[in-house]
Amino acid sequence: MNILVTNDDGVTADGILCLARTLSKKYKVTVVAPETEQSAVGHAITLRLPLWLRKLDINENFEIYSVSGTPADCVKMGIDVVLGEKPDLLISGINRGNNLGTDVVYSGTVSGALEGAIAGVPSIAVSSYSFENPMYETAAKFILDFLEEFDVRSIPRFTALNINVPSVPYDQIKGWKLTRQSKRMYDDYFEKRVDPSGGNYYWMMGTIIEDDPDPKADYKAIAENYVSVTPISVFLTNEEYLKRLEERYEDKTIR
Amino acid sequence: MNILVTNDDGVTADGILCLARTLSKKYKVTVVAPETEQSAVGHAITLRLPLWLRKLDINENFEIYSVSGTPADCVKMGIDVVLGEKPDLLISGINRGNNLGTDVVYSGTVSGALEGAIAGVPSIAVSSYSFENPMYETAAKFILDFLEEFDVRSIPRFTALNINVPSVPYDQIKGWKLTRQSKRMYDDYFEKRVDPSGGNYYWMMGTIIEDDPDPKADYKAIAENYVSVTPISVFLTNEEYLKRLEERYEDKTIR
Repeated sequence: MNILVTNDDGVTADGILCLARTLSKKYKVTVVAPETEQSAVGHAITLRLPLWLRKLDINENFEIYSVSGTPADCVKMGIDVVLGEKPDLLISGINRGNNLGTDVVYSGTVSGALEGAIAGVPSIAVSSYSFENPMYETAAKFILDFLEEFDVRSIPRFTALNINVPSVPYDQIKGWKLTRQSKRMYDDYFEKRVDPSGGNYYWMMGTIIEDDPDPKADYKAIAENYVSVTPISVFLTNEEYLKRLEERYEDKTIR
Repeated sequence: MNILVTNDDGVTADGILCLARTLSKKYKVTVVAPETEQSAVGHAITLRLPLWLRKLDINENFEIYSVSGTPADCVKMGIDVVLGEKPDLLISGINRGNNLGTDVVYSGTVSGALEGAIAGVPSIAVSSYSFENPMYETAAKFILDFLEEFDVRSIPRFTALNINVPSVPYDQIKGWKLTRQSKRMYDDYFEKRVDPSGGNYYWMMGTIIEDDPDPKADYKAIAENYVSVTPISVFLTNEEYLKRLEERYEDKTIR
């Protein structure tokens, strides 16, 4: 199996190197990842500037390329320029810190996987729960096991798996659960400061809110030391609300 | 009604000024938009750098603020810092060029509206179909009419409306249709060039693919000179596939 690996923490981040080394024991791995950290870039792509691609001279069992862009850029270039064909699987990660609830829309890691899904490649995003104490070895070992058990070819087009792994030693992981993207979100606030020339600037801060009644909420699996596996798609239509609107509004003519 | 207006083309773009001027005839409008163009930034937010907020000294019927960040940053700062409370409505646009099909995941304009939806504000993204010949007056006039007819307070939490308006004179618009985010996407390719110091760089290009069998596909309404109105949510779980996975895999224990 040929696996394309990307991330949003940058090409030299500990998480991606741990993942690529672990996968390369069994699979052919190619890393194509951002030159610089791209956390929280969402599904940004680079249209107004060109992209530089560089093969790194690093002594590993796999090839490593850096791209002067975002995770989604890396996936596009990885497929079209580096590999010249679709890989059998794309994995984006291992992210430093979790991607649960509304994180999914901000996350560069998740967007890397969704870009693979758009391109028609079975794709997985993987994150280690704790930003302060990520345990990449646990997540990498889990992914290796998961690929034995889960038929990634069954993942439908335009859909990816969003996997979050508790930051605990591997032998404390109880297993994995199929979960749903939860309503976990942030209550934002801004810390105001004054720069040396008198201008106001602001740091974005946020408090996590976890109050989703759904027993399948992604964060609840993690709290019990299970890995959460959420299938997510690039189609955002709210079907239930669309149906209600259709009942209320016919197609409307103007005038 | 208090309306917060943002966009991704930047605070001085023609589209946002046309929208804000039109809306300010009837509503209290505050513009909080990116200092510089942020097209295709997706749902990026600025976490590693602070944000600068500046009130512009521009002679209009409404206040204009610029933020040194993304559309999602603008919405967060617009609510928490500029207004200090939730507006009654958020509108992101008018974008130069359409946001149909998979554009939705790349679009800064759409992300602005989804950020409003996360914050619990009724939110709308609006785009003029043509990048080359956008017709902002048509889109702005349509939005004014639409707000008379559509109860924005009925939009559920975590959901926004993604509106695309054909680039034709207003009297050629036939009406509006409720639509679904389509499978419209791009077949990417990269044009390789060599920089003056001998390095390779690449321009991302793409050919549009429109082959969605769904009669409610967003782009089909536009082709018939209807405005497309697609309700989209920030929850990406693929429910159908989740159900199939649940039938196949029980919650899995390791060891």
